[in-house]
Amino acid sequence: MEPYWSRDFFNPSAIYVEGQAVKKVLDLERIKMAKLLGVGHKNIIFTSGGTESANLAILGAFEESLSTLKRPHLIISSTEHSAVARAAEEVKRRGGEVSVVEVNEEGVVSFESLKSLIKKSTFLVSIGLASSEIGTVQPVAKFARLIKEYRRINNTEYPYLHTDASQAPNYLPISLENLQVDLLTLDASKVYGPRGIGALVVKTGVKIRPIIVGGQQEGSLRAGTPNTSLIVGFVRALEIALKDREKEAKRLEVLRSHFVERVVKYLPQAIINGSKESHLPNMVSVSSPGILSEFLLLKLDAEGVLVSVGSACSHDERESGSPVIRALGKPELAESTTRFSFGRFTTADEIKRAVEIFARVASK
Amino acid sequence: MEPYWSRDFFNPSAIYVEGQAVKKVLDLERIKMAKLLGVGHKNIIFTSGGTESANLAILGAFEESLSTLKRPHLIISSTEHSAVARAAEEVKRRGGEVSVVEVNEEGVVSFESLKSLIKKSTFLVSIGLASSEIGTVQPVAKFARLIKEYRRINNTEYPYLHTDASQAPNYLPISLENLQVDLLTLDASKVYGPRGIGALVVKTGVKIRPIIVGGQQEGSLRAGTPNTSLIVGFVRALEIALKDREKEAKRLEVLRSHFVERVVKYLPQAIINGSKESHLPNMVSVSSPGILSEFLLLKLDAEGVLVSVGSACSHDERESGSPVIRALGKPELAESTTRFSFGRFTTADEIKRAVEIFARVASK
Repeated sequence: MEPYWSRDFFNPSAIYVEGQAVKKVLDLERIKMAKLLGVGHKNIIFTSGGTESANLAILGAFEESLSTLKRPHLIISSTEHSAVARAAEEVKRRGGEVSVVEVNEEGVVSFESLKSLIKKSTFLVSIGLASSEIGTVQPVAKFARLIKEYRRINNTEYPYLHTDASQAPNYLPISLENLQVDLLTLDASKVYGPRGIGALVVKTGVKIRPIIVGGQQEGSLRAGTPNTSLIVGFVRALEIALKDREKEAKRLEVLRSHFVERVVKYLPQAIINGSKESHLPNMVSVSSPGILSEFLLLKLDAEGVLVSVGSACSHDERESGSPVIRALGKPELAESTTRFSFGRFTTADEIKRAVEIFARVASK
Repeated sequence: MEPYWSRDFFNPSAIYVEGQAVKKVLDLERIKMAKLLGVGHKNIIFTSGGTESANLAILGAFEESLSTLKRPHLIISSTEHSAVARAAEEVKRRGGEVSVVEVNEEGVVSFESLKSLIKKSTFLVSIGLASSEIGTVQPVAKFARLIKEYRRINNTEYPYLHTDASQAPNYLPISLENLQVDLLTLDASKVYGPRGIGALVVKTGVKIRPIIVGGQQEGSLRAGTPNTSLIVGFVRALEIALKDREKEAKRLEVLRSHFVERVVKYLPQAIINGSKESHLPNMVSVSSPGILSEFLLLKLDAEGVLVSVGSACSHDERESGSPVIRALGKPELAESTTRFSFGRFTTADEIKRAVEIFARVASK
């Protein structure tokens, strides 16, 4: 990233040779990224991050759909990140209709419920690939087939399918061939890349409007000078993540199992949230009935174990508890749930120590 | 900026001590910036850059105004950057009304024309403080007085006044006390800061809606994890720019005069665009009748002089010529205008050489 901050800082849209040289770098980065995702370079829209990407998918598709649908209808799941949930509220505010498809107690979206909600005015279904709070992985490709079948039978271009895959690239296949979605949200900071850069992958033929307008960058779908430095960092981070994906997913799944086993052993009253079958290997959401998660968090922090409560993005939840845990049908646990996240630098020894500290603190 | 990429990377919205420590850094940066601009820390909304800030000002104020105005009316000048001009088009597309106030041949907005355009449904006047293409500085404080007077007489909160001051902080006073605007757009990369970070200053009591929704960051006016690293870089860059402002403005004004004098002497047919009285000291827009600016640009580039044609953000203009030059009433020069920009590292000797090369190339 370094050279593009101060040496090769030229605006890639400038026509002098120095600007064009930077444009060439950007073009190559875009092609690299497109190959990683199994799409063409024109399908990549760089944004300022996952939140903007999800907003662009939802609000961009909504604004475009207004030209053919009277009261465009959006479906999201009940466990979406606030970037999706609030965008849905904005759709409603602008005159659209929103349905929330429920999940089962493991956090998996019901196929039948989803199927029953799709109707002629549905312009978009937005279901996150993996939950940032409980790690449940959704069968997105299965939903994609359902939606494609609906479009075929009804001879319509809608609904599109968007998935927020921000949490996924380190551990799950995210190529469009695998996921079969129309719109895919990514965030560099979730794959050990820099903050401030994300992407929306837009399948060819999928029509959206920009939400940030001005210059004609990013195929006129996202105005603003391209951020060469952050893009270079993003693409490199994604390359590394995808290269190490299978190995790292296996390694963390082993650590996660150890963690879960010990929690169950030391704290029989604890409840492990999410899906047993289909989950991210890098997090465990644990409900500790009767213990306020904020209390637990502070105690753990004092001992060097950093955990999360709900989504860091949503302060409100600190008072009312996580809406994702509520969505699992466990409102009584919403304020007693903490999330342990692992990563590239987490070791087996750390897992062992963390769970011991957790058991001690939670038993007091 | 460095420590916040990899060491102190914690999410400032996280509640563990490490996250809160980063939050403290961010809070202090926000306070620093607020002091530089003469506002409170709650008045600063960090965005991904100037384009997003201008969009947030215009579309955010538009969406909010819909709750009280039937067909909200926007006034922009005819020489605005595409971030403002396209946002105005979006306002129109969403059912608003847009008026474009003309400028005189020096690029200055007419006070009388502006006055005559303001009406009860006007929710916003958006006039850039200094043109990115011709450097003309607008009497924004005068427009602010006009608007305040209108609001007082009509006992209304509208219209607001927004100025895109992205081009200005290196050379002009930009505190809200000076400008008296309600909304102010800034971009870090224009003050030698990092790309990918900007700010919208929102005066207390001014009501806008967010254009990127999700988490409750930035007073719920801009969702997405705050970018500590880029914010630290932005604030430091702005500090330096404001500290050196007067000295640097004087230094460059001298260089600019030399440049202009020599152009006039060597190329009597050349036309210097913009205002003689009130302009940025860091750029000269020169029209060379009969010479295509793209041709000139490539010739100059080959000799190490990097110039710009129109706005780098807008590729279209390469074919049709700069709309800003057209707006000056010189459509015949729109394709024959190049911009020479100076900066912190430009020396008197470089100015001398550049103008000699320019004279030689343009005389051929």
